[in-house]
Amino acid sequence: MHQPDFAAITSAVPFADHLGFEVIRCDAEQVIVEVTLAPEHCTAGGTAHGGFLMALADFTGAAGGFVTLPAGARGTTTIESKTNMIGTAPAGSRLRAIATPLHIGRRTSVWNTRVETADGKLISQTSQTQFVL
Amino acid sequence: MHQPDFAAITSAVPFADHLGFEVIRCDAEQVIVEVTLAPEHCTAGGTAHGGFLMALADFTGAAGGFVTLPAGARGTTTIESKTNMIGTAPAGSRLRAIATPLHIGRRTSVWNTRVETADGKLISQTSQTQFVL
Amino acid sequence: MHQPDFAAITSAVPFADHLGFEVIRCDAEQVIVEVTLAPEHCTAGGTAHGGFLMALADFTGAAGGFVTLPAGARGTTTIESKTNMIGTAPAGSRLRAIATPLHIGRRTSVWNTRVETADGKLISQTSQTQFVL
Amino acid sequence: MHQPDFAAITSAVPFADHLGFEVIRCDAEQVIVEVTLAPEHCTAGGTAHGGFLMALADFTGAAGGFVTLPAGARGTTTIESKTNMIGTAPAGSRLRAIATPLHIGRRTSVWNTRVETADGKLISQTSQTQFVL
Repeated sequence: MHQPDFAAITSAVPFADHLGFEVIRCDAEQVIVEVTLAPEHCTAGGTAHGGFLMALADFTGAAGGFVTLPAGARGTTTIESKTNMIGTAPAGSRLRAIATPLHIGRRTSVWNTRVETADGKLISQTSQTQFVL
Repeated sequence: MHQPDFAAITSAVPFADHLGFEVIRCDAEQVIVEVTLAPEHCTAGGTAHGGFLMALADFTGAAGGFVTLPAGARGTTTIESKTNMIGTAPAGSRLRAIATPLHIGRRTSVWNTRVETADGKLISQTSQTQFVL
Repeated sequence: MHQPDFAAITSAVPFADHLGFEVIRCDAEQVIVEVTLAPEHCTAGGTAHGGFLMALADFTGAAGGFVTLPAGARGTTTIESKTNMIGTAPAGSRLRAIATPLHIGRRTSVWNTRVETADGKLISQTSQTQFVL
Repeated sequence: MHQPDFAAITSAVPFADHLGFEVIRCDAEQVIVEVTLAPEHCTAGGTAHGGFLMALADFTGAAGGFVTLPAGARGTTTIESKTNMIGTAPAGSRLRAIATPLHIGRRTSVWNTRVETADGKLISQTSQTQFVL
């Protein structure tokens, strides 16, 4: 497996590009995506909106699903995702989403994604299933 | 309970405002939020990104949590959310999120939210817990 | 589609049989499974254990997945399930799980299951994905 | 915090006792519960039923919630739980559920639980929220 073009992964997904996500690492062991939280990504009170955290985790796990697709597959789609919200992060925070696989198979892959701040505080955790198309 | 100011609910949540969400109905029986899906809200292939659908559902359920807060509560926050992705919606679609309560309590409320297209096609379903602060 | 043998569905699943589940209805519109809650199905305090409710919902949704399998499929397996616990039910309660499909497809089906008491009190809600084998 | 009486935790929860769960470790860092999978705990085909795995994880995470209760709390209850099913385990397997906390707070705790076979094969993963009563 050759190294994927990280910028191409993001630019292929307009919502990820729109939200400023940056792929830092993307392979079968781990996917890392970072973003600087802007004020427009926040909820009341100026901390990360839950939907933003879910979108970040979804993109990160899906990138993992994409990079581990079996030969001949056409793509991957998220079929389910569940997030527990743990902590708050204020606008300006550098967030890091770290996805690790629970399973990589011919028909699905399953990913666990932690979103943390730069100093390692846990903000949310997501588990999701990627379907192989 | 007096009628909430729908525009104020959205403008209090910068991410919802940024994504163009519009509160159509918001009471203890049902919350309806609509949005026109823009190209920047899409995934590869030009259909609604899963993270966008999760953000839409999260805001809708949270609005329900907010409008049903018990007297004296300071606010509400989503503590967990799970979404099943069912169908695809292309850019330009008018999406409607419809949240109904499973439970409205003193310490939590629980909401089920369906996202549909204008012609009633099911795009996703979310269940989430709102914490009373 | 001919009427399935309800008793055969339960007896094919030893855990369902062990827990006393009874299939009342099982078709593509709805699956209903009932059980009388025994003391050994309870948690501290003598009300339904969350794991028992999850097992009941899992069996009910899986029966729906089974009865709607596309031609040629070998079977179905649950790949994910999420439950919100809403109310409590004491030992002796007659519980009814009612599953309705969100999606019935060639590769997956997705089911929503409510567990209620005989007088319609909501005890839990589960959403789950059945994989077509 | 003194060492809890492991047998007492199980015997306080009739469903856990009925299913043969054994608490091996239970503290704020980790909870380990083991069980030997009996034929009556299986689904068609003689492997662990998903509901059994969910019940095992639920009890394990709830034991973590119990042992980390803040002073003055009356107890804990699971309010939501989500499981991804990853692998199969045949009757006779020794299963080990390992729960670790994502969050331990005054009002909730959140637990991640892996169920593995004796040789470390991943069978399922659960995330759940425990409410402080």
